Amino acid sequence: MRPDRLLFAAAPGFEADFAALLAMKRETDAEVDAQVAAIIAEVRDRGDAALFDYTARFDRLDLAVAGLAVTPAEIEAAAAACDPALLAALDLAAARIRAFHQRQVPGDDHFVDEAGVRLGLRWTPVQAAGLYVPGGTAAYPSSVLMNAIPAKAAGVGRLVMVVPAPDGRLNPLVLAAARIAGVDEIYRVGGAQAVAALAYGTATIRPVDKIVGPGNAWVAAAKRRVFGTVGIDMIAGPSEILVVADGGNDPGWIAADLLSQAEHDTAAQSILITDDAAFAAQVGRAVESHLATLPRAAIARDSWDRHGAMIVVPTLADAVPLVDRIAPEHLELAVAEPEALAARVRNAGAIFLGRYTPEAVGDYVGGPNHVLPTARSARFSSGLGVLDFMKRTTLIGCDSQSLRRIGPAAVRLAEAEGLGAHALSVAIRLNPGEA
Amino acid sequence: MRPDRLLFAAAPGFEADFAALLAMKRETDAEVDAQVAAIIAEVRDRGDAALFDYTARFDRLDLAVAGLAVTPAEIEAAAAACDPALLAALDLAAARIRAFHQRQVPGDDHFVDEAGVRLGLRWTPVQAAGLYVPGGTAAYPSSVLMNAIPAKAAGVGRLVMVVPAPDGRLNPLVLAAARIAGVDEIYRVGGAQAVAALAYGTATIRPVDKIVGPGNAWVAAAKRRVFGTVGIDMIAGPSEILVVADGGNDPGWIAADLLSQAEHDTAAQSILITDDAAFAAQVGRAVESHLATLPRAAIARDSWDRHGAMIVVPTLADAVPLVDRIAPEHLELAVAEPEALAARVRNAGAIFLGRYTPEAVGDYVGGPNHVLPTARSARFSSGLGVLDFMKRTTLIGCDSQSLRRIGPAAVRLAEAEGLGAHALSVAIRLNPGEA
Repeated sequence: MRPDRLLFAAAPGFEADFAALLAMKRETDAEVDAQVAAIIAEVRDRGDAALFDYTARFDRLDLAVAGLAVTPAEIEAAAAACDPALLAALDLAAARIRAFHQRQVPGDDHFVDEAGVRLGLRWTPVQAAGLYVPGGTAAYPSSVLMNAIPAKAAGVGRLVMVVPAPDGRLNPLVLAAARIAGVDEIYRVGGAQAVAALAYGTATIRPVDKIVGPGNAWVAAAKRRVFGTVGIDMIAGPSEILVVADGGNDPGWIAADLLSQAEHDTAAQSILITDDAAFAAQVGRAVESHLATLPRAAIARDSWDRHGAMIVVPTLADAVPLVDRIAPEHLELAVAEPEALAARVRNAGAIFLGRYTPEAVGDYVGGPNHVLPTARSARFSSGLGVLDFMKRTTLIGCDSQSLRRIGPAAVRLAEAEGLGAHALSVAIRLNPGEA
Repeated sequence: MRPDRLLFAAAPGFEADFAALLAMKRETDAEVDAQVAAIIAEVRDRGDAALFDYTARFDRLDLAVAGLAVTPAEIEAAAAACDPALLAALDLAAARIRAFHQRQVPGDDHFVDEAGVRLGLRWTPVQAAGLYVPGGTAAYPSSVLMNAIPAKAAGVGRLVMVVPAPDGRLNPLVLAAARIAGVDEIYRVGGAQAVAALAYGTATIRPVDKIVGPGNAWVAAAKRRVFGTVGIDMIAGPSEILVVADGGNDPGWIAADLLSQAEHDTAAQSILITDDAAFAAQVGRAVESHLATLPRAAIARDSWDRHGAMIVVPTLADAVPLVDRIAPEHLELAVAEPEALAARVRNAGAIFLGRYTPEAVGDYVGGPNHVLPTARSARFSSGLGVLDFMKRTTLIGCDSQSLRRIGPAAVRLAEAEGLGAHALSVAIRLNPGEA
C-alpha cells in the first residue's frame, strides 16, 4: 500500500483525500471497439463460417475437426475425469446457490380494484439466455454456477454456454459445473465472435434474448454493442473489497481477506476501515507476511501497492457514511456486532457478517451470488439474481362500467396533452351511440 | 398503411415478410454524441456557469434573472392557475398509479439455513434520483406522474426534477404533477447539460444516483454517456402498439387505438393482427375516416403509412407466436376471451384486456406504468416500476461452527481455481491454531 493511502478520518484534508480515493480510475481503456464492430459484422454476415475463421485464428483450433458444439459424451468424460472431492464441492456449492436463488422467484399479483378494474403484474422468464465463460486462466467453474443457476431458477428454457477452447483445451471442471447447473447447450467459441453468435444467431447457434457472464475487454465491448438487440448483465469492473474491522480481529485473517481481492487482478482494490490505528499497522505487516508465500503474490502486491488503502476512523459509527460513499462490491463487517452495523449501511453489493465470514465464502459456497456491482454502482444496482432472467408484464382490464369510472379523466388529460387520438380511443367507448 | 404491409400468415412468403417487419429500423441516428460529450465536459468543468450559458443559448433564458431552482411559490402559483377539472384528473391518475406501484415494494428475506449460516437479501431505495422532463410540445404531466410516483413508492429520499423552460415558459400542469407526485427539487434546465448536472453535480444541484425520464436525442446520448457514474432507465425508442382483434369489434374503436400510437411520432408503429380479413379492411377504412378529423393527423398518417401493418391469421391462436416475436410495448387483446389469450403470451410490456380497454387508459389512469420496453426489448426487459429505484444487498454470516461445515468446500474450489489467498482466508479461520 502507498504510504499516503493511510488516511485518518479526523485529520484535516481527509475529505479531499477520500474524494480522490473515490475518483480513482482503475479501468484500462482498450482500443478494441473498432475490432469488435468488425467481428460482429462478420458473424452477422457469414455466421458459422466466421466463427470457424476466428476460432482458427484466436484459439488455434479447427472447428471443422473439433466441432462447434461440445457433445454430451465430452461433458460426461470431462466430469468423470474430475477429482471426486472437487465434484462434491461443486455439488455443495450448487445446492446452496440454488436454495438461495429459488427463494427469489417472485409471485404474480392479480386483483380487482375499487373501480372494478382488473389489474395485474405478471413475471415470465426470458425464453433463452446465453452465458459467456472465459477460457484460459480465468475459467472459473464457480462463475458457471453463479450465472447459470439463477437463470434456471427463473425458468429460462434454453440456457446456452459459450466458452473458448484455446488449442482445443477446455477446463473439465467448467464442463462439470455446466452439467450440474443444467446448461442446455455448450459451444466451443469465445471472444466477440461468441457474443455476436448469441445475439444474432448462426446456422448452428440459435439466438438468445439475454447474455450474461464475465469476459475480457473484447467480450465487454461486444456485449455493449449488442445491447438492445439482446439484454445484457452489468459490465463488471475490477473486483473490490472493503473490510470494516475493529481491533478485536486477528490481523492475519483480515490481511488474507484484503489479499483475496488483490490477487484477482492488479486493478483490484482492497480497503480497510478501522477504529484502531495500531491494528491497521498490524494488518499492513500481516499483508507482507502472507505475500511471502502466496502463489499469486505478484498480482496481489501490485494491486495492494497501487490501489490499497487504510482509513482510520474515530469510531466505527463514523465508518458508515464512508461505506455508503464507497458503495463497495464486497463489504466485510469484522466487528463485535455486525448486524447492527449492517442495518445502517445502505450501499453495498454483498455484506459478510462477523469475524468468521471471509468474503471468499461468498465466492463459492455461501449461496448468494458472487456477480456483484463494482465501481460504486451498488448505489443504484444489484448483484445478479433470478429477477435478471425474468421480466414483468402489466395487465389492465376494463369493462364498460369501470371504463366509465376512470375513462373521463383519461380523456381530459389526453386532451390537455394535445393527443386527440388518445382521447378519441377512450371517448368513443364511453358513448358508443355517438361514435 | 402501405398495401404490401397487409400480410396473410397462411400465405407463402409470410415468414420472410414478417421477418422484414421485425427487422424494420425506425430510429434515426442523430449525430449528437460529440456535441453531448463536449456539453458534459463543460458542466463537469464549470458547473452552474455552464448551465447558465447553455440555457441562454438553447432556451433563450437568463437564469441569473429567472433562477435555476423553481421556487415553491412558483409551483403553488402554477397549480392554482390550472383548470380544477384537470387537477382532479391528475389526482385520480396519481392515486391509481400510487396504489398499483405501492404493491410492488418488495420484502426482505432473512433466514438461517440448515448449515447454521445466516443468510439475507435486503432491499434499499436509491438515495437520490433525477427525473428528466422534456419541455415544449412533449411536456407531458402524465410522464411526471409515471416516473416520480414509483421512485417515491420505493422510498427515494431526494427526487430531483429537471425541465427546460424555453423562453422562460414552464407547463403549469407539469409543475402541478410534480407537486402531486412529491418531487423534492425542480430545476429550470434541460438537454444534455441537465443530465450532466444530475450525474456530476454543480454548486446548486447535488448529484443523484439514478436518472430516469424521456428526452430527445441529446438527452438520450447524455444518459448513455453518464451511465456507470449513475444508473439510468431504459433508452426508450418510438412507441408501438399491437392490437389483436377478432371480427366482433367496432372497427372504429380499433382504428382509434392504432392511431393513438401513430399520433405520438412519425416513427411510431401500429400493427393489427386479426383472424378476419374483412374486419381488417373495415379498420383500414375507419383509420382514414378518423384521420379526417384528428388534430395530429399529419403525424399519425405518416406513421401509419410508413410503419403500419395488418396481419391476417387463420385463427387467433396463430397470433400468439407472432406476438411473442414482435414482443410489443403495448398489446391490446380485443377478443372475446382476453385472459385466456393473455396467459399464452410471454413477451409484452403491457397487456390491455378486452374490448373496453383502449391502450390510452394505461397512458393515464389505469395504474400500471406507461414507461415500457420498446423495439422488441420486452423479450428481456420490463416497464418502469418500484424495483428500478431499489437495489438488493445480500448478507452472509457464518460462525466458527457453520464455517467448518461449508468452508472446506470453498478452500477446495479456491485452490482448484488457483486463488491461494481466497483459500487462505477461509483455511486460516478453520484451523486458528495453525495460522
